[in-house]
Amino acid sequence: MPALDVAGEFETIERLLKPLAHPEWARGLMDDVAVLPSRPGHDLVLTKDALVEGVHFLAGDPLDTVARKLLRVNLSDLAAKGAEPFGYLLSCFWSERCGWPEREAFAAGLAEDQARFDVALLGGDTVKTPGPASFSLTALGWAPAGRAVARAGAQAGDLVFVTGAIGDGLLGLRAARNELSLDPERIAALIDHYRAPTPRLDFAPAIREFATASVDVSDGLIADLGHVAKASGVGIALNLNVLPLSAAAQAWFDDRVDAQMSLEDLASGGDDYEIAFTAPPRHEEALRREAERQLVRLTRIGEVRAGSGLVATFDDRPVALSRSGWTHD
Amino acid sequence: MPALDVAGEFETIERLLKPLAHPEWARGLMDDVAVLPSRPGHDLVLTKDALVEGVHFLAGDPLDTVARKLLRVNLSDLAAKGAEPFGYLLSCFWSERCGWPEREAFAAGLAEDQARFDVALLGGDTVKTPGPASFSLTALGWAPAGRAVARAGAQAGDLVFVTGAIGDGLLGLRAARNELSLDPERIAALIDHYRAPTPRLDFAPAIREFATASVDVSDGLIADLGHVAKASGVGIALNLNVLPLSAAAQAWFDDRVDAQMSLEDLASGGDDYEIAFTAPPRHEEALRREAERQLVRLTRIGEVRAGSGLVATFDDRPVALSRSGWTHD
Repeated sequence: MPALDVAGEFETIERLLKPLAHPEWARGLMDDVAVLPSRPGHDLVLTKDALVEGVHFLAGDPLDTVARKLLRVNLSDLAAKGAEPFGYLLSCFWSERCGWPEREAFAAGLAEDQARFDVALLGGDTVKTPGPASFSLTALGWAPAGRAVARAGAQAGDLVFVTGAIGDGLLGLRAARNELSLDPERIAALIDHYRAPTPRLDFAPAIREFATASVDVSDGLIADLGHVAKASGVGIALNLNVLPLSAAAQAWFDDRVDAQMSLEDLASGGDDYEIAFTAPPRHEEALRREAERQLVRLTRIGEVRAGSGLVATFDDRPVALSRSGWTHD
Repeated sequence: MPALDVAGEFETIERLLKPLAHPEWARGLMDDVAVLPSRPGHDLVLTKDALVEGVHFLAGDPLDTVARKLLRVNLSDLAAKGAEPFGYLLSCFWSERCGWPEREAFAAGLAEDQARFDVALLGGDTVKTPGPASFSLTALGWAPAGRAVARAGAQAGDLVFVTGAIGDGLLGLRAARNELSLDPERIAALIDHYRAPTPRLDFAPAIREFATASVDVSDGLIADLGHVAKASGVGIALNLNVLPLSAAAQAWFDDRVDAQMSLEDLASGGDDYEIAFTAPPRHEEALRREAERQLVRLTRIGEVRAGSGLVATFDDRPVALSRSGWTHD
């Protein structure tokens, strides 16, 4: 494509993006394409998610955290499939507010997370937009041939697990919007999670080994488990009473009057980026051992049944679900 | 990621995008990821380019042609490397103006070109934006291992060739903006080229076989050959007198007073999406035979020399190049 970002494009690539490039496969970002050798015995797993300012991140968010979120939400999709990420392609739609300091911050955020998650930039492009700053990222990973876990695959009798805590995505957004009253420390932790959630890559090998079906919690736990139920042709029962909460979410929850509605809120919010998955009971012990080894919190939150759809229970009674998941409106 | 396009996202995927999905690797667009088997003996070639309304296409352009252009500019990058495309991932940033008819037109444009170029949708996402409609596409292709052609590789003594005609990208934009006075038939041909250029996929095998260096003409022939010279560490001499023109461009050119400046304009414009490449003289005959067989116009436009940089000549005299290529400002 033409050089769209005009003066800035070549300099952005040269100064900011080249240092992030894969030393071999990216061809120095100078060849319009990336070229990857095949990896026999492995499948390539690809995902592509976009972020728009004012929709998926707040207008004031620092661009280093935006870059990290962009990378992390895509890596989260790979983790949930049991894939091991190695690289990504990037499209930046820079808005008016994206001058050099903002672009440098963006690249610094990527550099930090590249090192943390051992991935490298493979290619992409950078353009100017008269609209809000927007970014699209294509993440690539490997999985042993035929072993990438799907949403389909859950069997009646399987147990349902989730990593980490649920609800910090929703509360983090509210905290970032200054809508929560909690200790400053709690608020900071929630905002951190909203701006840069942690993809559960450490747990991806266990997912690949033991999960029958898996999804990352982005639309909301209830909606995402609903997707698994639908894709697998089974029913799923989710016990809201055992929903794992972070310390900050617990502090928020302790001040609520309506426990059931609060838990339903947290399980309907999105942006958690934990992995929800199903596995046969015989693997529970191995999963718990692996979780302990990786310092990952693992909670059994339900079970798979014959039938269809998702039923959430509170105090052993089914809850009438009013919302199917997260929306940005 | 959360369901951003809210009401519209699921329906857009279900009704419009699923029919475009690869029957196996896209997992029905329901699994957040695409999963590709490895292809032993082949490299995967990837490219990612974006289009923004008002920057890379005009606000009034029908969305079926926008979709086709989006796909084609990416396929053009693969063709220039000698790669054979098989699929793509897509991010749609729908603006306010993108209602159902516009989305349907977009999908119809993709469907038409998928069939023409034998590629399938692998995944991606769709979101709403308060800004201009924008699209990002990641195209994937195969090349025999180690055979994807680079910008680097041109050798002193090589000849320089270009497929098709140069300048229709620039004149097409002017025609679409109603800035040209030519026969309506010529105008229509130029607008067609601007809206849906033809990626030279038929010629990709010949490029792979014979080219030492190659690039698709997107920034402008002069700028793109300059990239080849730089990446290859050689000089390139371009003869403007033999610049291949379409019938429409020839008609425009015949009305010009300053032949040299007009040719320089055409060679500095972008959006041509032809392949400019270098090859040793001993392959010229085989290249011409292959071009004839594929009904592709092939023109020898220059030669590679020791040294550096690009020199354009007109009537055997060097031209002082005032512009390095296409910009969108």
